[in-house]
Amino acid sequence: MSEEQGISVKQSEDFSKWYLEAVRKGGFIDQRSPIKGFDVILPWGYAIWERIQDCFDREIKEHGVQNAYFPLVIPESLIKKEEEHFKGFKAEAFAITEAGGEKLEEKLFVRPTSETIMYHMFAMWIRSYKDLPLLINQWCNVVRFDTKGTKPFLRGREFLWQEGHTAHATREDADKWLTTVVKMYNEVYKMLAIEPLILVRPKSDTFAGADYSIVFDTLVQDGKVVQGPGSHLLGQHFSKPFDIKFLDEDGKEKYVWQTSWGITTRQIGILIAHHGDDKGAVLPPEVAPVQVVIVPILFKGKEADVLEKAGSVKEQLHQLGIRARLDSREHSAGFKFNEWELKGVPLRVEIGPKDIAAGEVTAVSRVGEKTKVKMTELDEIKGLLDNIQEEMATKSRKFLADSINDVHSMDQLKAAEGGFLRGNWCSSGECEASIKAESGFEIRGTLYDKEEKCFANCLWCGKPAKHVVYIAKAY
Amino acid sequence: MSEEQGISVKQSEDFSKWYLEAVRKGGFIDQRSPIKGFDVILPWGYAIWERIQDCFDREIKEHGVQNAYFPLVIPESLIKKEEEHFKGFKAEAFAITEAGGEKLEEKLFVRPTSETIMYHMFAMWIRSYKDLPLLINQWCNVVRFDTKGTKPFLRGREFLWQEGHTAHATREDADKWLTTVVKMYNEVYKMLAIEPLILVRPKSDTFAGADYSIVFDTLVQDGKVVQGPGSHLLGQHFSKPFDIKFLDEDGKEKYVWQTSWGITTRQIGILIAHHGDDKGAVLPPEVAPVQVVIVPILFKGKEADVLEKAGSVKEQLHQLGIRARLDSREHSAGFKFNEWELKGVPLRVEIGPKDIAAGEVTAVSRVGEKTKVKMTELDEIKGLLDNIQEEMATKSRKFLADSINDVHSMDQLKAAEGGFLRGNWCSSGECEASIKAESGFEIRGTLYDKEEKCFANCLWCGKPAKHVVYIAKAY
Repeated sequence: MSEEQGISVKQSEDFSKWYLEAVRKGGFIDQRSPIKGFDVILPWGYAIWERIQDCFDREIKEHGVQNAYFPLVIPESLIKKEEEHFKGFKAEAFAITEAGGEKLEEKLFVRPTSETIMYHMFAMWIRSYKDLPLLINQWCNVVRFDTKGTKPFLRGREFLWQEGHTAHATREDADKWLTTVVKMYNEVYKMLAIEPLILVRPKSDTFAGADYSIVFDTLVQDGKVVQGPGSHLLGQHFSKPFDIKFLDEDGKEKYVWQTSWGITTRQIGILIAHHGDDKGAVLPPEVAPVQVVIVPILFKGKEADVLEKAGSVKEQLHQLGIRARLDSREHSAGFKFNEWELKGVPLRVEIGPKDIAAGEVTAVSRVGEKTKVKMTELDEIKGLLDNIQEEMATKSRKFLADSINDVHSMDQLKAAEGGFLRGNWCSSGECEASIKAESGFEIRGTLYDKEEKCFANCLWCGKPAKHVVYIAKAY
Repeated sequence: MSEEQGISVKQSEDFSKWYLEAVRKGGFIDQRSPIKGFDVILPWGYAIWERIQDCFDREIKEHGVQNAYFPLVIPESLIKKEEEHFKGFKAEAFAITEAGGEKLEEKLFVRPTSETIMYHMFAMWIRSYKDLPLLINQWCNVVRFDTKGTKPFLRGREFLWQEGHTAHATREDADKWLTTVVKMYNEVYKMLAIEPLILVRPKSDTFAGADYSIVFDTLVQDGKVVQGPGSHLLGQHFSKPFDIKFLDEDGKEKYVWQTSWGITTRQIGILIAHHGDDKGAVLPPEVAPVQVVIVPILFKGKEADVLEKAGSVKEQLHQLGIRARLDSREHSAGFKFNEWELKGVPLRVEIGPKDIAAGEVTAVSRVGEKTKVKMTELDEIKGLLDNIQEEMATKSRKFLADSINDVHSMDQLKAAEGGFLRGNWCSSGECEASIKAESGFEIRGTLYDKEEKCFANCLWCGKPAKHVVYIAKAY
């Protein structure tokens, strides 16, 4: 492989550099836009986003959520209505102050998230318990002036996402809805063959204006974690300032209970950083834009025959519902192998004169497993893809399980190399801050679906602990 | 029908008022957002946009176009690079001047369209003739500070669209690509059952920075026209300032030839204003979010039986691939009839005790045609929907054909009541401006796919004419 084509470092040598090269050379994203943090999502990266959208959009529609579209801009007076929320976002907000060369009377914030503009409308739409639950979603772009630096997909100033916003008659209904949301995000994670750790964040890291936040934390290859989709119980924090009331069956006027939840294009970065290897991205078949790339092995005088057979194999794979592409460019087979490995295509099918003579093709998985498949039994390739999906999911489960280690003391925590550390915490904000300051690891939260019994005292103060928490270094 | 539920005026009395009520009461859009011209697209309207997206996205992918995503913001220095383009858009641009409370060093314009930001990237991506054609599209939002006032869908300050941008080796390739684009938009128009008039705009109304613009003009019920999708031959107007060059097969460096083309959420407004009647929207089955609404006719004591049968009919229609909904709300049947008529659902299926006794259902089309369908032959409903689609397309073709009238003089033009007036023009800008000033009608352009012979002298100056032009009042 030429130095230029492949990735110049191993993951173990410099993960950050490996990641930057993997997303750029694999054709996922281009950071050379003229505005820092506003990257260009390239077709190969965008196609993954489209598959995530398809999957999640199907899920939400099956659960009765309706898509709509709300304004990009939010007047300053409106975004200030919920105090905590504004506090959380004002340092990140981009403001429009001019239109058509004239100064605007009121600043317009470019949405960092849409609670305020949506709930302004919800207040007009909701009158009676019959209007509930109201389940609304939008697919859109948001911008946030993140001052912590930028990293393609993982930390950008503009990203694409869906934001779901719901209103319910009772807190129980809202809580229960969030269990459905978690199930729906789990379907996306299944497609991505990623095993998440689903946590409830500590108060310090709860969404601005929420009672609690449920997040999908994902480990990546260097042992750090990245936050995936977040789902928030907003309680009545917004319905009170925004005056979203309904007449209940009992004849009383009540404020609604709300939730919001989102998954973003960050997920593409998570996917690459979680499954990638030294050669580049490794994509699970269910999300791969191309599941099978067919590379003809050409020898002089036999080109026509090989290309014809390769074309026929492609057609047959299409018939089987497989996303297959024939790479008939002029490059060498070796160049093509490297490029499709960089891009993470799950299965390569090689067809050369020898294969044709033997009436078969050579299938090579992204991680190097070879299988001969008879031309008359190409449907076996479906099975190979299913196996790859399954193996990647199994590997991800094992990676997570192996990366969780109990710690009983700050010394143990400080000596840890990465992954999730499972420790005990008294629940005080001071201890939380001290743990992070001293170790560099931060408390990510408690398990969402299981209450765990403490097995030691608080890591910092040594007083009786209240929670078993998962601690990690995060992007 | 209660006054509140239905539309309070006939189209013929006050079309503008009718339109505003049709889009609001039909649940397509909500104009009560806190920012003028930034409307909320409601689920019923957004579902139509999703069908337009599905249709066009399938088309472009079949033709090799790749989706990507480019930044929302464009630095001032970049948007100024193509002079004509900037002139055309600067009066409409919203500018971000602050981020995180700090003043930015350079103004960022919120994209009114993405030529400049995309072509900045194209210059880095294109090296050789092998990289051409480059066919890129993005689905996104754009904002324009339109000072001509706002009208939901038809004239908003933010809208959703796709913008396709291509680069080709020769002008002929670029011209030819636009014929493909026109074909693809025609597929959307077929789905919408709308007959467009496809025109090449006069120079005065060509896209800022283009050689020529092809537009789909659509007549609406009051005889005015609305511009639909536009496709532009940009020539080398952008490739030169943006330095987009390629090494051709002949070893020479050349500038690429470009096109751009877009369809927007305005199309939802066009659809309603084109097909609507006094009762509200009339949606063609192919684009209707709900194709068949089932309304149970309930009599005391027979509710359970009717609802069970209605549910079973819905299931059978789903099996047939029909988008059917059962309206089992507590409202009266009359209320439901009116509501679904407002929303434009193509076919209503009524099921009452009498129908059940006769083993049939009563199907009523949006325009009032009744058909009895046997419960054992529900697949006939597919045929009914096909007929409605076909009839709407035929009606639209006839509407357009009947609305084109030749004019030989300014007197004839001034006496015209609407529709397209077919006249002759010498091609001078002064005559164009005078025709508009004197008559209120504007020259929309010449036929795209047919050169027509002049049949009189220029409407204004009386000198020999160069073009047969189509003249109309426009939104």
